[in-house]
Amino acid sequence: MTASGATPPKFDQLFRHDFEQLLVWRRDVRHFRRDPVDGALIERLIAMACLSPSVGNSQPWRFVRITDLDRRAAVRANFAECNAEALQCYHGERARLYADLKLAGLDDAPEHLAVFCDHGSDTGHGLGSRTMPETKNFSVVAAVYTLWLAARIFGLGVGWVSILDPERVRASLDVPEEWSLIAYLCIGKPVEESDEPELVRLGWQEREAFEKVLFRR
Amino acid sequence: MTASGATPPKFDQLFRHDFEQLLVWRRDVRHFRRDPVDGALIERLIAMACLSPSVGNSQPWRFVRITDLDRRAAVRANFAECNAEALQCYHGERARLYADLKLAGLDDAPEHLAVFCDHGSDTGHGLGSRTMPETKNFSVVAAVYTLWLAARIFGLGVGWVSILDPERVRASLDVPEEWSLIAYLCIGKPVEESDEPELVRLGWQEREAFEKVLFRR
Repeated sequence: MTASGATPPKFDQLFRHDFEQLLVWRRDVRHFRRDPVDGALIERLIAMACLSPSVGNSQPWRFVRITDLDRRAAVRANFAECNAEALQCYHGERARLYADLKLAGLDDAPEHLAVFCDHGSDTGHGLGSRTMPETKNFSVVAAVYTLWLAARIFGLGVGWVSILDPERVRASLDVPEEWSLIAYLCIGKPVEESDEPELVRLGWQEREAFEKVLFRR
Repeated sequence: MTASGATPPKFDQLFRHDFEQLLVWRRDVRHFRRDPVDGALIERLIAMACLSPSVGNSQPWRFVRITDLDRRAAVRANFAECNAEALQCYHGERARLYADLKLAGLDDAPEHLAVFCDHGSDTGHGLGSRTMPETKNFSVVAAVYTLWLAARIFGLGVGWVSILDPERVRASLDVPEEWSLIAYLCIGKPVEESDEPELVRLGWQEREAFEKVLFRR
């Protein structure tokens, strides 16, 4: 029994297994089918994202569904320029590899969702973010990731586009100056499922050994 | 059928329901039982966290399990100072409310885990983080949150302590200068379960209305 009177859930062996499968099969998707996505489902995913942790319960996430074609085109152009500039940073074989990667599903994804952190809100009264102000942005990242996992459960793929000038995205979408862009998401049915990151499959970057990430003090 | 030959999982109605329950009952825990946690389980949770998305597959997460009592005491002192300073920022009723909150489980939690972002690694070859370098930190946040959800599935609570001077934590734990602190986590069995954030229950900050976070362009 708890304060609210509700009984806490117990998560069994099957749920643990399926949750791990969810992690294994969640992908950063860049190849989308053009089939439209039910708007009510998108709102349901956003509502689930609002159950994410946030510093001081500040809930600084702001979700912007973009349907206007001119605004989408502005983001597309932003990506194209930033991606061309990024290509200039690579040389030889790696430049060829980079040029061959598909790094955004902006053209085909039926749903575009920009997610911002509202730094102009006093919700949460600053608790927990005085010495680490970046934790407000981190709260929004948690919300993005909740939405991502939830989308995969419903058979949708999410692609996080970060090859963008974030200030220009903010201007293109005409949102308040106190909002900072955390993620620009493409959402839709994926062309294929995979248990391996596309960047692994295409030889860009392997998975790291576990020993490289775990330390003791 | 997929590139790897494995069959993608289907997530049924029951899993969807249980996943939503997981989100509803995940809490930022500050009240822990002192029972030790199985070290193998902690490593399993970290391995699951390594399945999180990361920009350019950079996998910049570094997990530091802290068992040394002097190092723990240094973090405890760091928290106490930062928390006392934070209290000075509040006045009247809100200061009284702040002073009454328990904001960290550092004394009782059997497991302390610091999670850093390694900005000195070239893994991922900079893909996706040129115009938004903060996405490396964001990747580590996703890993922290995976671990958090996974812990709850196994009956463990996680508390994210951010009332810390992050550079001093880095020094206290003697980790490389290129590592930046993302989260200091307390992990252990929670004293109680709840479907409501402690900051809501204690009157610090209510949940926001859905209308406040969803926008269209």
